[in-house]
Amino acid sequence: MSSSDQTASTSFNAPDCSQIQLNEHGRLHHFLTPQNLSKDILTEIMDVAESFSSVANQAVKKVPVLRGKTIVNLFFENSTRTRTTFELAAKRLSADVININVATSAASKGESVLDTIRTLEAMQVDMFVVRHADSGTAHFIARNVAPHVSVINAGDGSHAHPTQAMLDMFTIRRVKKDFSKLKVAIIGDILHSRVARSEIHALNILGAKEVRVIAPNTLLPIDAKALGVTVFNDLESGLDDVDVVIMLRLQRERMHGALLPSENEYFDRFGLTEEKLAYTKSDVTVMHPGPINRGVEMAASVADGPNSVVLQQVTNGIAVRMAVMTLILGQNRQVVGAE
Amino acid sequence: MSSSDQTASTSFNAPDCSQIQLNEHGRLHHFLTPQNLSKDILTEIMDVAESFSSVANQAVKKVPVLRGKTIVNLFFENSTRTRTTFELAAKRLSADVININVATSAASKGESVLDTIRTLEAMQVDMFVVRHADSGTAHFIARNVAPHVSVINAGDGSHAHPTQAMLDMFTIRRVKKDFSKLKVAIIGDILHSRVARSEIHALNILGAKEVRVIAPNTLLPIDAKALGVTVFNDLESGLDDVDVVIMLRLQRERMHGALLPSENEYFDRFGLTEEKLAYTKSDVTVMHPGPINRGVEMAASVADGPNSVVLQQVTNGIAVRMAVMTLILGQNRQVVGAE
Amino acid sequence: MSSSDQTASTSFNAPDCSQIQLNEHGRLHHFLTPQNLSKDILTEIMDVAESFSSVANQAVKKVPVLRGKTIVNLFFENSTRTRTTFELAAKRLSADVININVATSAASKGESVLDTIRTLEAMQVDMFVVRHADSGTAHFIARNVAPHVSVINAGDGSHAHPTQAMLDMFTIRRVKKDFSKLKVAIIGDILHSRVARSEIHALNILGAKEVRVIAPNTLLPIDAKALGVTVFNDLESGLDDVDVVIMLRLQRERMHGALLPSENEYFDRFGLTEEKLAYTKSDVTVMHPGPINRGVEMAASVADGPNSVVLQQVTNGIAVRMAVMTLILGQNRQVVGAE
Repeated sequence: MSSSDQTASTSFNAPDCSQIQLNEHGRLHHFLTPQNLSKDILTEIMDVAESFSSVANQAVKKVPVLRGKTIVNLFFENSTRTRTTFELAAKRLSADVININVATSAASKGESVLDTIRTLEAMQVDMFVVRHADSGTAHFIARNVAPHVSVINAGDGSHAHPTQAMLDMFTIRRVKKDFSKLKVAIIGDILHSRVARSEIHALNILGAKEVRVIAPNTLLPIDAKALGVTVFNDLESGLDDVDVVIMLRLQRERMHGALLPSENEYFDRFGLTEEKLAYTKSDVTVMHPGPINRGVEMAASVADGPNSVVLQQVTNGIAVRMAVMTLILGQNRQVVGAE
Repeated sequence: MSSSDQTASTSFNAPDCSQIQLNEHGRLHHFLTPQNLSKDILTEIMDVAESFSSVANQAVKKVPVLRGKTIVNLFFENSTRTRTTFELAAKRLSADVININVATSAASKGESVLDTIRTLEAMQVDMFVVRHADSGTAHFIARNVAPHVSVINAGDGSHAHPTQAMLDMFTIRRVKKDFSKLKVAIIGDILHSRVARSEIHALNILGAKEVRVIAPNTLLPIDAKALGVTVFNDLESGLDDVDVVIMLRLQRERMHGALLPSENEYFDRFGLTEEKLAYTKSDVTVMHPGPINRGVEMAASVADGPNSVVLQQVTNGIAVRMAVMTLILGQNRQVVGAE
Repeated sequence: MSSSDQTASTSFNAPDCSQIQLNEHGRLHHFLTPQNLSKDILTEIMDVAESFSSVANQAVKKVPVLRGKTIVNLFFENSTRTRTTFELAAKRLSADVININVATSAASKGESVLDTIRTLEAMQVDMFVVRHADSGTAHFIARNVAPHVSVINAGDGSHAHPTQAMLDMFTIRRVKKDFSKLKVAIIGDILHSRVARSEIHALNILGAKEVRVIAPNTLLPIDAKALGVTVFNDLESGLDDVDVVIMLRLQRERMHGALLPSENEYFDRFGLTEEKLAYTKSDVTVMHPGPINRGVEMAASVADGPNSVVLQQVTNGIAVRMAVMTLILGQNRQVVGAE
């Protein structure tokens, strides 16, 4: 792993993935981060996702688009929820899926990440969906895989989580249509959040009017403004007149460190309640990547209330992942030869 | 979870699932317990299972009945054997299957059962197969899922295990044809057995001539007779003239409590041996849900002897689970629209 | 398990599987060991594997040969790498695959191996792929399964690993064509290696000119020569003029016993370096079953160098496993009846 990977975990210095994500025709080949991708590419992902949204309502929720392709869920960090969405997306595209939880397998034999990749690649798999606690792992793998293999980043340290960002963009577009009129506030642990980082990139690429982050200074990166956001330290001013609120999940293990006061105090200052929601536009959309800690990040009445689109986010997550898989592997398929 | 769920685990007070199991057309929508279902419904399950029994003998053991459906095995309690039968049943119906072992995943993030359900439901799954150590969990989930999602109870605490009961009924019917002439004895830990409870309901609904339970008083519910059974405390009188003997699995962990003497003493009093079998009808059918503790619940010579149908029970379990899945999801499919 | 199984783990006394592996037509029914199989059978496996090699290069890497068949990966010993190759092979043949890791499931209920087999068999599965730490387990299961069920040994103790041996034979044949001209050296822990044993059998059956083993005496079976090999204790003489070098994986847990000096000393004496490679023929082929301990069994420059076919071995492993599954289950299918 490169030295930049080591330092990326708590700083906001990420590997530059812009070159590697596109093939020579300018089409998506890996999906590691929205950063430096064009508005056209992100829009195409959402357009294809739109076409897949209807598949879920069919009696037979399956299309033969990726039949005969092999997709490996390579999870170095456990996440049943995220793994399940990728597995379902792949199966609904008729791909074969192999789930590998590395924490409990090859690693115990001392096999390196690269040997694992080389071996699976030799089994002629087509795509790795990679999740890892270290920033830069998906990028490292993408730089090292064979040309015919693609990588989707399913979350790497505090770096990026591009499909989560795109399912959120897709959810926002379905509700609000036009990004250019939107003020969006992201609330919570911005410093450690790969979701926040990818959302900020995506919102700026898609031309959101204003992207705000709201957090205590201890949970903000030093160079926050450089990301293209307005910084707020309190909910009242930060929520003023916003169209969309994106809550981040608070890792409870961080609560016991020096960065945060108690859960109660956090909820008092940054928890989203119906009272706090009054500062926003009345038709505000409330989002959360889940799972929600009710009473910590937000009140149950907000999480389950009329402005919340938390469950639509989950539904849209399948369609967006189907779209990314299809854009990447569907085009390769055309290059290699039709069925 | 409702308060009744808490107390249900060792009493025989179960949630009343009768309302919720049928849809507005009186067709099976969830399968939580045989209790309060009609003889017609139970008979239909066996009839459809009969038609699936031949599938297993085909060269291609697969029918496209549930293609494009997603079935989630949601196991809060580990059971490879039961999970495998549901997985095989779903795959032979061409459904997509997702296995989720909750003990090792989302629960570790503190996500509640309801949030897990809501999230999976938003991924447009069609059916949950639920196993949980607490009585009432499947019922609780069924009461809370979206209308288009169905629940099969794969065992909840000491409450119910309806597919096990129905595969036993199906096995009995194949051998004995007519329930109205049958005396059936259930032997073992009636108090804690979800299998026993569901079998008693099913046998009474199907019109068995007599249902007996044979157990020491410490392993009988206080209100045993209210279940519609004759109670016996010794094998000799209990086995007299019976047509079918259903052995229950003895949970070894119970052996170390105050409820039971030693394994040897249990086997002496309640273990089924060839000598004890002499009390029954000569063509008696011997059943056990497996896995058998040979030398505890019964002698190896009985378990593997000519009257035992233990392996047929396993085979029939696939057909019965295919039948239940098809009755529930096949009819929904017709409502939503044909392929 | 038979008493020979107990003693087989470190001696080279293996069960005689020759009778049981073929059906009454002389066709492969189980694949437990290459020992005592004919040259024709081993050649047929490689010929069929050759035809499957092209499947991996198709846009749709899937053939419907085993549609409707159920293959159970029954792993009593964890191995993600091996399990994945069998799972991929089965899926590319369109079979349904069930993964069962016994260490974490039925065994905890005290169920015996035989009960596990009987139960799965009753679910009408077609094939078990078995891996177990005890020599003879696959053979024991093959002797006890129902006539319509087949067993592939995916590694049993120190006895056999026939698909690994055959993928190595297939890899050698693709590079070198004619076995009768080849000198092959196997280097490492011959004593404990099921891979070595199966390779020695296969090479001798296929008519290799000379099979050598190179190891310290502590890692050689007492009756090594009886296996049909030439024994060497040093690399220099053992590598002289060989065409193929097969490295074995060194189990690091063995390093702490009395059998071996330190890793460094082992590498000095038996590690394959570019200097050592100079003793061989210039077009030598270097193989390793993986995962490689670089700097222990061989230098990274050799493992990743021009003579290494380590990744081709992995690729060929899929084709060979597809071939074995097809030869066994494809012919059964014809007996039972066509689709």
